[in-house]
Amino acid sequence: MSLPKVAVFRKEHFNAAHRLNNPHWSDEKNARVYGKCNNANYHGHNYDLIVQVNGHPDPETGYVIDMKVLSDLIKEHVTDRFDHKNLNLDTEEFRDLNPTAENIAIVIYHLLREKIDPQFELKIKLYETERNFVEYPAH
Amino acid sequence: MSLPKVAVFRKEHFNAAHRLNNPHWSDEKNARVYGKCNNANYHGHNYDLIVQVNGHPDPETGYVIDMKVLSDLIKEHVTDRFDHKNLNLDTEEFRDLNPTAENIAIVIYHLLREKIDPQFELKIKLYETERNFVEYPAH
Amino acid sequence: MSLPKVAVFRKEHFNAAHRLNNPHWSDEKNARVYGKCNNANYHGHNYDLIVQVNGHPDPETGYVIDMKVLSDLIKEHVTDRFDHKNLNLDTEEFRDLNPTAENIAIVIYHLLREKIDPQFELKIKLYETERNFVEYPAH
Amino acid sequence: MSLPKVAVFRKEHFNAAHRLNNPHWSDEKNARVYGKCNNANYHGHNYDLIVQVNGHPDPETGYVIDMKVLSDLIKEHVTDRFDHKNLNLDTEEFRDLNPTAENIAIVIYHLLREKIDPQFELKIKLYETERNFVEYPAH
Amino acid sequence: MSLPKVAVFRKEHFNAAHRLNNPHWSDEKNARVYGKCNNANYHGHNYDLIVQVNGHPDPETGYVIDMKVLSDLIKEHVTDRFDHKNLNLDTEEFRDLNPTAENIAIVIYHLLREKIDPQFELKIKLYETERNFVEYPAH
Amino acid sequence: MSLPKVAVFRKEHFNAAHRLNNPHWSDEKNARVYGKCNNANYHGHNYDLIVQVNGHPDPETGYVIDMKVLSDLIKEHVTDRFDHKNLNLDTEEFRDLNPTAENIAIVIYHLLREKIDPQFELKIKLYETERNFVEYPAH
Repeated sequence: MSLPKVAVFRKEHFNAAHRLNNPHWSDEKNARVYGKCNNANYHGHNYDLIVQVNGHPDPETGYVIDMKVLSDLIKEHVTDRFDHKNLNLDTEEFRDLNPTAENIAIVIYHLLREKIDPQFELKIKLYETERNFVEYPAH
Repeated sequence: MSLPKVAVFRKEHFNAAHRLNNPHWSDEKNARVYGKCNNANYHGHNYDLIVQVNGHPDPETGYVIDMKVLSDLIKEHVTDRFDHKNLNLDTEEFRDLNPTAENIAIVIYHLLREKIDPQFELKIKLYETERNFVEYPAH
Repeated sequence: MSLPKVAVFRKEHFNAAHRLNNPHWSDEKNARVYGKCNNANYHGHNYDLIVQVNGHPDPETGYVIDMKVLSDLIKEHVTDRFDHKNLNLDTEEFRDLNPTAENIAIVIYHLLREKIDPQFELKIKLYETERNFVEYPAH
Repeated sequence: MSLPKVAVFRKEHFNAAHRLNNPHWSDEKNARVYGKCNNANYHGHNYDLIVQVNGHPDPETGYVIDMKVLSDLIKEHVTDRFDHKNLNLDTEEFRDLNPTAENIAIVIYHLLREKIDPQFELKIKLYETERNFVEYPAH
Repeated sequence: MSLPKVAVFRKEHFNAAHRLNNPHWSDEKNARVYGKCNNANYHGHNYDLIVQVNGHPDPETGYVIDMKVLSDLIKEHVTDRFDHKNLNLDTEEFRDLNPTAENIAIVIYHLLREKIDPQFELKIKLYETERNFVEYPAH
Repeated sequence: MSLPKVAVFRKEHFNAAHRLNNPHWSDEKNARVYGKCNNANYHGHNYDLIVQVNGHPDPETGYVIDMKVLSDLIKEHVTDRFDHKNLNLDTEEFRDLNPTAENIAIVIYHLLREKIDPQFELKIKLYETERNFVEYPAH
């Protein structure tokens, strides 16, 4: 019988600029829908990212996944890509996708999903500010 | 095919006085069960409230729900009602209901449930102190 | 030559109800000056208290002051006195003194000052909320 | 019809030393797998522990479980056992079990599971650092 | 004799984009000195701002300064000016001044200094991230 | 005229084991004075370290000191030395000096003092736990 399932969490962060804008809308509609977040010159955030991996601890190591390995994966595939960047201008992922917190979490999920063993469930929590945050997938 | 489901969270707070007391019990029993929380002259807390809404991001906006709209709903229906109030004396909701953290979370859930589109799942997390908190409904 | 001076800090907390009201003023003036904090039925807070003691570490123990001793002093003279109390009704200190954060910090300073060796400097930091706090004496 | 189910949470903490080492492996393999965590002289952490109990609030008290009772149970069965201890040397639980965060959470779950009424679901969240934490069972 | 001096603190926040660049330097030197912070397309931060005011509590109100008044001053003169802005492009203050945390704190100090009664001492603490912050003037 | 003086702060952390014991005392006295902190098998902490540097911002860079440089200095001279170590057994500094928070802060101060330009004032804040912390030199 296998050991029980455990969730492990690793917290990282990155700082980025972004703006919210739908190119299919008029400037007026963008300003009305997105308010201050539509500022043409961008604004920015310190994003706190929590990556959750659910799985069975390895009986030999006692680890679900080595946190150093998980941290390096996040660094290579997520934070090096987004840290100190303008999400709209400097990244492929958000050239045609609005960098809302919801969309950033979904993008990060897919970036990591293909790098993490399919036996593990994966969940992303992203804090845009201390008071606005998202989780994907929802439970 | 719809976009995947995301949870969005908004954190607000309010400060209130309360006491725990069951009017069907003797003073002795109330003191024994509720201890310091039974103080006849009330005590108080800074309540931190996290409202979680699960749903599909709108493909046009990239939002599950506009956080400004959600924040305004919480302000109108919850924090304006409870902030700087005595929960036992100043509110209808806790005139005949003990304002335990559990009951406050349930009341807040119902206040918001009728204002938020039924397509969205709703969850309430309430911190009475940094070390005592509740979530409703439980998962 | 004595060892250099070090500041040591101990964080404690208490939960209390209060209201702000000046009995020499009309109800209208109290409402205008104190706003929601004037609510006749009280509201409340989780107060976080940080007590700072500056002194020379004892060469034998390496301690400025034993944190267990300091914590017990704070418990006996401050938090047991104010925790789960109505500051206006249940305490002598605030019967005729408005329990503003400023005044609570000054009162706590004097309660502890007479219990702590005069060779040590003392400072009080009091958080009424995460966003409103005070320090006494100011530096 | 019973009242709805609520999750209640109590946060406690303890400070302990530990090292990660698998006695069936060579020193080289232990150093390679566990890195700095394999240090023969131990290192340590401030562990933050959140115990979650899911259940129906008692209609008379408004409590799922009295937080004072829950806090006392955690103190008696967990924090008094592990606080200011060397997990590898001073505890029975980790004499032959690697004190990874995953294993500590599982051990704490079982210590509390037998003391808490089976009608309640139980979940353990353990922070080894602010950035590395685990939850058991995973959801 | 006047009442003793107390420090009061108000915490606010704003989100902004910025880049660090000295127009008198070559691109190479800017990249070498400012690293990722020199990104031509900007990056951003959630800035946490703590405004400290030292003064004598008014014997009638028990306040050094009304926190609502202080919060409104900060909103009018600081956060409305910088929130959701690109500091380099959208503000007069940083058109010719590098928006380092040091300079932002100094600018905020001067914006507030002329609005706050000279009898009060003023100090600014600015968190660019949880791990990098500044205070002006230094003590 | 030089620019005004600013304090800059960098937060780092390390995890270590330690015990408090005075070799000139009997076991009984050590147990009485240090209580649980005297455990012969060590316990441990997550230490949070805040290094404060006061100085004049360079007019060309807008920096008091480059935070990357400061962070690297702290890493090289402090956290690489103490992280995941047993302070009593693995370090020269605490072979004959009790690793109280007071003494650790003083040692860190001297390790950094000789690496940081004498024009800058230096201050160390060290959190042993969230509730026990020290600052050196005291102000």
